[in-house]
Amino acid sequence: MTEKLPLLVDVPTREEIEAIHQGIRALVPPTPALNYSYLDRDLGCSLYFKCEQFHEIGAFKLRGATSAALALSEAQRAMGIATHSSGNHAQATACIAQQLGIPAYIVMPSNAPKVKIEATKGFGAAITFCEPTQQAREAALDKICQETGAYFIHPYNNYNVIAGQATAAKELLEQVPDLDMIIAPVGGGGLLSGTALWSHYAGKGINVLGAEPQAVDDAFRSLHAGSIQQNESANTLADGLKTTLGEFTFPLIQKYVSEIHTVSEAEIIAAMAMLWKRLKLVTEPSGSVPFAALLRNAEKFAGKRIGIILSGGNVDMEKLPFIA
Amino acid sequence: MTEKLPLLVDVPTREEIEAIHQGIRALVPPTPALNYSYLDRDLGCSLYFKCEQFHEIGAFKLRGATSAALALSEAQRAMGIATHSSGNHAQATACIAQQLGIPAYIVMPSNAPKVKIEATKGFGAAITFCEPTQQAREAALDKICQETGAYFIHPYNNYNVIAGQATAAKELLEQVPDLDMIIAPVGGGGLLSGTALWSHYAGKGINVLGAEPQAVDDAFRSLHAGSIQQNESANTLADGLKTTLGEFTFPLIQKYVSEIHTVSEAEIIAAMAMLWKRLKLVTEPSGSVPFAALLRNAEKFAGKRIGIILSGGNVDMEKLPFIA
Repeated sequence: MTEKLPLLVDVPTREEIEAIHQGIRALVPPTPALNYSYLDRDLGCSLYFKCEQFHEIGAFKLRGATSAALALSEAQRAMGIATHSSGNHAQATACIAQQLGIPAYIVMPSNAPKVKIEATKGFGAAITFCEPTQQAREAALDKICQETGAYFIHPYNNYNVIAGQATAAKELLEQVPDLDMIIAPVGGGGLLSGTALWSHYAGKGINVLGAEPQAVDDAFRSLHAGSIQQNESANTLADGLKTTLGEFTFPLIQKYVSEIHTVSEAEIIAAMAMLWKRLKLVTEPSGSVPFAALLRNAEKFAGKRIGIILSGGNVDMEKLPFIA
Repeated sequence: MTEKLPLLVDVPTREEIEAIHQGIRALVPPTPALNYSYLDRDLGCSLYFKCEQFHEIGAFKLRGATSAALALSEAQRAMGIATHSSGNHAQATACIAQQLGIPAYIVMPSNAPKVKIEATKGFGAAITFCEPTQQAREAALDKICQETGAYFIHPYNNYNVIAGQATAAKELLEQVPDLDMIIAPVGGGGLLSGTALWSHYAGKGINVLGAEPQAVDDAFRSLHAGSIQQNESANTLADGLKTTLGEFTFPLIQKYVSEIHTVSEAEIIAAMAMLWKRLKLVTEPSGSVPFAALLRNAEKFAGKRIGIILSGGNVDMEKLPFIA
């Protein structure tokens, strides 16, 4: 059995994140932080793109799922792990289950991107489709967990998941120690809260910004309202960012994130086109949102050293939004 | 004026390549060598992808063009630089001319990929279109050079260009010192001859393989015949590899390259799809050819540590060949 990591029941400490990073490293190898000097010259700032799309599942979610799975006892693992997800967390849960040789049960909304459904199947998970609502997801998952005894790895309301996602920022700051700022996308807030938490522990005054589509600007509104807000609709290309903040992630974001920037669909598409066409990086719409936030206000970032977390690259290439 | 590099009239020495690498570094920053541990696990070998598509022009050609341009006197530079190219060398010549503030005159075949034409224009070069034959290219270029006094930077039959392209392998071996083998694509042979020459100077018994499309297998046939062979036709997606070997590149390839592997169009498309969909790297068909050669015979490479030169990523995304 792979070594058991701590099962966290409260906000991860610095030492817990360090132990988790050490524990997941063999299953979740580091991703590079790429710099493009010509882009820096054109934009007037120094950008380091943390390429989370280079993970086996094409997204950062492998960090959190691995952190959570490795915190289970052998008996718990044997009953399997389960989750609901539009895609990348589904793949992550399926992938780590396959690596550990345990069952994975995944509830996916019927409108999830084909590429994410296929990949999840490819890792050998049992998939159950449901209506694309939060209620339908949760009902389907509850039923499965009761029937199988599988452990539910929540996509973001889980401190082991948050600690796992925090390792992206930890790794980035090991690669580029003197960043002024990190921009991460925000959906449920697992990546953003982990990024902000670790940046706080790093203690160098690093400014952490969240970025989300205007169409699902619940994080922006939640910070202003001081309570978790919902989205009326979810009409965005950034399928990974449709979820709203959770009870574990919101307080961390309130405490450690300085601002949430919102971007239009056209700005997401323009950033994605630039990532593909100039930087030669396959990035999904959700993963392009932080770069869109930077491009929207490039002059505000002049002279800064900025980490941009490219959260994933799973996209149906049949219908690239930047191709007319 | 930027420092002048040596103008080479014979096979570059080890010291000359070192001086040229030092001299071009500020204008041609290093590209990363990426490893994907899950891919290594699946294929049974260790692959390091040298990402030459991350250069400002999206291809390795910036190395050679910069090496050649910096070898010119100030008076020569003022009259400009010129070339004929289906695309990437055109962009490279235009880009370095723009950086140095000198004119660039480019002859391009009328069927060059739109993305490469647009990019060349974007660097401010004067473009002349011609019929897509070697004769038409050379005639158009001769006329321009006579009229303007511009210096012709040959895409590969130029020892400064070969020395510049050699810096890709030099950099790769600095990043991953213990490679058993490097696979590079071969068109005119500038990149392959430079790769082989530097690997020879590195003196560690590194095996250098060339890879080319079956449809334009002139390098394969040239090595077997012992003389430069032509292609009857050039019906391949790998637009950058349609040229045949030159008098400067062929002897180096004869001397220092162990084998040329050829791949079918279907194999090129499959390798390109894998680079995009799994590795999340935008790579053009020509740049996908070395990986296609590896995938064709993956079992032959078992246990080896292999550098794969991804030569470029300039491709019209409207018509991706791996999308039905």
